[in-house]
Amino acid sequence: MSFDKPWELLRSAIELRDREALESVLHDIGPMETARGISRLEPLAQTELFSILGYQNAADLLTEIPELQAAELIEELSAAQAAAIVDEMPADKQADLLAELAEEDAEAILTEMPSADADEVRRLLEYPPDSAGGMMLPEFVAFSATRSVADVLDDLRGRGDEYSDYEVQYAYVIDAGGHLLGVLRVRDLIFARRDAAVTEIMLADPISVEVRLPLADLRDVFEQHSYLGVPVTEDGVLVGVVHRDQLDDAIDRESGRTLLRMTGIAGGEELRSMPLRTRAGRRLSWLSINVVLNLLAASVIAMYQDILAEVIVLAVFLPIISDMSGCSGNQAVAVSMRELTLGIVKPRDLLHVLRKEVSVGLVNGAALGLLIASAAFIWQQNPVLGLIVGGALAINTLIAVALGGILPLALRLVGYDPALASGPILTTVTDMCGFFVLLNIASSLRAYLV
Amino acid sequence: MSFDKPWELLRSAIELRDREALESVLHDIGPMETARGISRLEPLAQTELFSILGYQNAADLLTEIPELQAAELIEELSAAQAAAIVDEMPADKQADLLAELAEEDAEAILTEMPSADADEVRRLLEYPPDSAGGMMLPEFVAFSATRSVADVLDDLRGRGDEYSDYEVQYAYVIDAGGHLLGVLRVRDLIFARRDAAVTEIMLADPISVEVRLPLADLRDVFEQHSYLGVPVTEDGVLVGVVHRDQLDDAIDRESGRTLLRMTGIAGGEELRSMPLRTRAGRRLSWLSINVVLNLLAASVIAMYQDILAEVIVLAVFLPIISDMSGCSGNQAVAVSMRELTLGIVKPRDLLHVLRKEVSVGLVNGAALGLLIASAAFIWQQNPVLGLIVGGALAINTLIAVALGGILPLALRLVGYDPALASGPILTTVTDMCGFFVLLNIASSLRAYLV
Repeated sequence: MSFDKPWELLRSAIELRDREALESVLHDIGPMETARGISRLEPLAQTELFSILGYQNAADLLTEIPELQAAELIEELSAAQAAAIVDEMPADKQADLLAELAEEDAEAILTEMPSADADEVRRLLEYPPDSAGGMMLPEFVAFSATRSVADVLDDLRGRGDEYSDYEVQYAYVIDAGGHLLGVLRVRDLIFARRDAAVTEIMLADPISVEVRLPLADLRDVFEQHSYLGVPVTEDGVLVGVVHRDQLDDAIDRESGRTLLRMTGIAGGEELRSMPLRTRAGRRLSWLSINVVLNLLAASVIAMYQDILAEVIVLAVFLPIISDMSGCSGNQAVAVSMRELTLGIVKPRDLLHVLRKEVSVGLVNGAALGLLIASAAFIWQQNPVLGLIVGGALAINTLIAVALGGILPLALRLVGYDPALASGPILTTVTDMCGFFVLLNIASSLRAYLV
Repeated sequence: MSFDKPWELLRSAIELRDREALESVLHDIGPMETARGISRLEPLAQTELFSILGYQNAADLLTEIPELQAAELIEELSAAQAAAIVDEMPADKQADLLAELAEEDAEAILTEMPSADADEVRRLLEYPPDSAGGMMLPEFVAFSATRSVADVLDDLRGRGDEYSDYEVQYAYVIDAGGHLLGVLRVRDLIFARRDAAVTEIMLADPISVEVRLPLADLRDVFEQHSYLGVPVTEDGVLVGVVHRDQLDDAIDRESGRTLLRMTGIAGGEELRSMPLRTRAGRRLSWLSINVVLNLLAASVIAMYQDILAEVIVLAVFLPIISDMSGCSGNQAVAVSMRELTLGIVKPRDLLHVLRKEVSVGLVNGAALGLLIASAAFIWQQNPVLGLIVGGALAINTLIAVALGGILPLALRLVGYDPALASGPILTTVTDMCGFFVLLNIASSLRAYLV
């Protein structure tokens, strides 16, 4: 479904302050178009939208649209208004949302919330957002080990309404101290004798994860097992459940951030509805580092002004060598990032990757070198120029491809973010090498060029 | 879990031809390390691994490792051996795997399979891999509308073993012609009266999708509803179920491909265990187009050789302008790609994005221009040189950011792949503009420079 201008539908319902019309517009256009529509409303209209909707509906809306956008909208509201809305959201979403806010804004909202709810959110906020604790749902259905299948079925039947919120697929069996003993698959209850003890049909020694487990490891757990949810424990005590949904959300967030970080948007995600200052500033902080790196690389050219002045056509080939090496190197970076994500290489497989990339670098270097050599020869009718330009591109392609392949692994090995740092390091090094090789060979062979 | 050299564990078990040892190694190291280990084995050892494991175990192994790698391994085997292994896999995985192979290889394997199984796979292969039909599991549990809750429970209890493979969360209610009438949540059966008709507790008018629905739309459906699976129909007849798992796999595949395509690896994914010819060739096909685009851009420099010869320092700034504009433009491309994925912008929101990017381009262009102008002035003590270089970068940043923002939308609008085409178009245009602006202004102000 797609609407031409969802914000106009929203805007007219807001202007009429007609709650029913607004609800029906939101329902008709669905969460994706709602997200798109809201991002085009003026801040004042956004705030009014929430006041017309009421807390529960506003909470539902915030749960459905991208978190980042929800955080942006919440920041426009007063702390009291925001608290009333946030309080109606599921606990894990509350924490995810508040984690996107500035710390003082989040605290202001928490102080306005009922203190028991606020404490639970504060507890969740203590875990890093991409750890099992940060992702988990702190609500679950647990039964004592002494209960029977009939007890559990009766309890579930009796509290159907209350549990319907939980999307119950698993229930957990715990001891008196809250320690996790086993997992009950709700569907297994159907197949079991009513008088069996829960301990008979539970899966004993269940897979569980510690609250601090990071995203990448949790992903491994879900890949190795086809469970829909995994219990989370803190010192053996069951504290929550991570569902595949939450993992997927986290991976989605992660891969979106990777894409942006690879182009140097580092300080958090960017949406075009954010203030210009934030958007320009975040991009600029990395660009200004890049200017310095570029000046560094260009300083190699400055050292060879004499040969450039004598053989001015070399200036035509400098940007080509820089751009082509960057492209070849970035391909190798992308393949390494991909293989890291798939788990097919580990950071310490550096030498293996290097060997593999050197062969590609040799083949592609030779091919590209030949191509550019022919172009240079055809244009200037000077075979030595062709040889120099082609040779420089060939050598530099080899360097770029080899470096591009191992950079993400090496950066991961020393604890840096490969998505953010691979690009600038790669292009600076390959620019410097490329300029140096081309101009240095040209200097030593200047007799054949002038 | 992570092992230092999983391939050595595998290799020694293969050398001993010890099936039990091999199985226990595979179990201990888990699927991720298995994938990593296998990618480092020699082709002969890979083939032997399968013959030692036996068909069922080999099929399980292929289901667990990345599809792309599984396809590579299958291509090493004889068609008969491959068919025996593939036949043991779940039907949807069979189709996914065979879709990765060359058409004649897939057909050779299918002819060796039992014809009923082969026909089912052929039917699935007819749907595009990223459509609901291509992703769906063609097996499901369905009951006629005339049955009662007690019937269904008895049937499920009686055939527990058979259904245990299905991860049954939903069962479907169909009419005599196989048309979908409603969805039964298995967990609702627990809460229902045994004598109720299934039509009383089923969710009538269920959400269902047509076999041809593409990935992006299917994603919308799963985002709008929190279902674990959605029934797939062809002309109203239930033909399969898509689970969130399958959708996630498809999205994962898609985002991996996007990353690679953005660096010009277009002809399919790349793994380092693939033959050198494939790897070098796929990368090269795009790089050689890029050489031509680069020569095109550099031809602008060639037209201005006179001014370059007179003011040789300009040659130092050409690669800087090219690289910085590329970076600024690529940030805008990344934000647009991200917003397209999140659904916050649609291709036709072009003007909105353009407005938003022009403001960032103005701010960042001014900032970067000032930076580079200062550097040029400090280095050469010539204020006019600073002005020219800074002005050119400022203008070109504005062009690059505006173009980068709208390119992905414009390409999507005319049906091209923005991930593949945005980069080369962006850098070629911004290089040409950048070189032209810098050298043209310099020519007209040459009196102040020489």
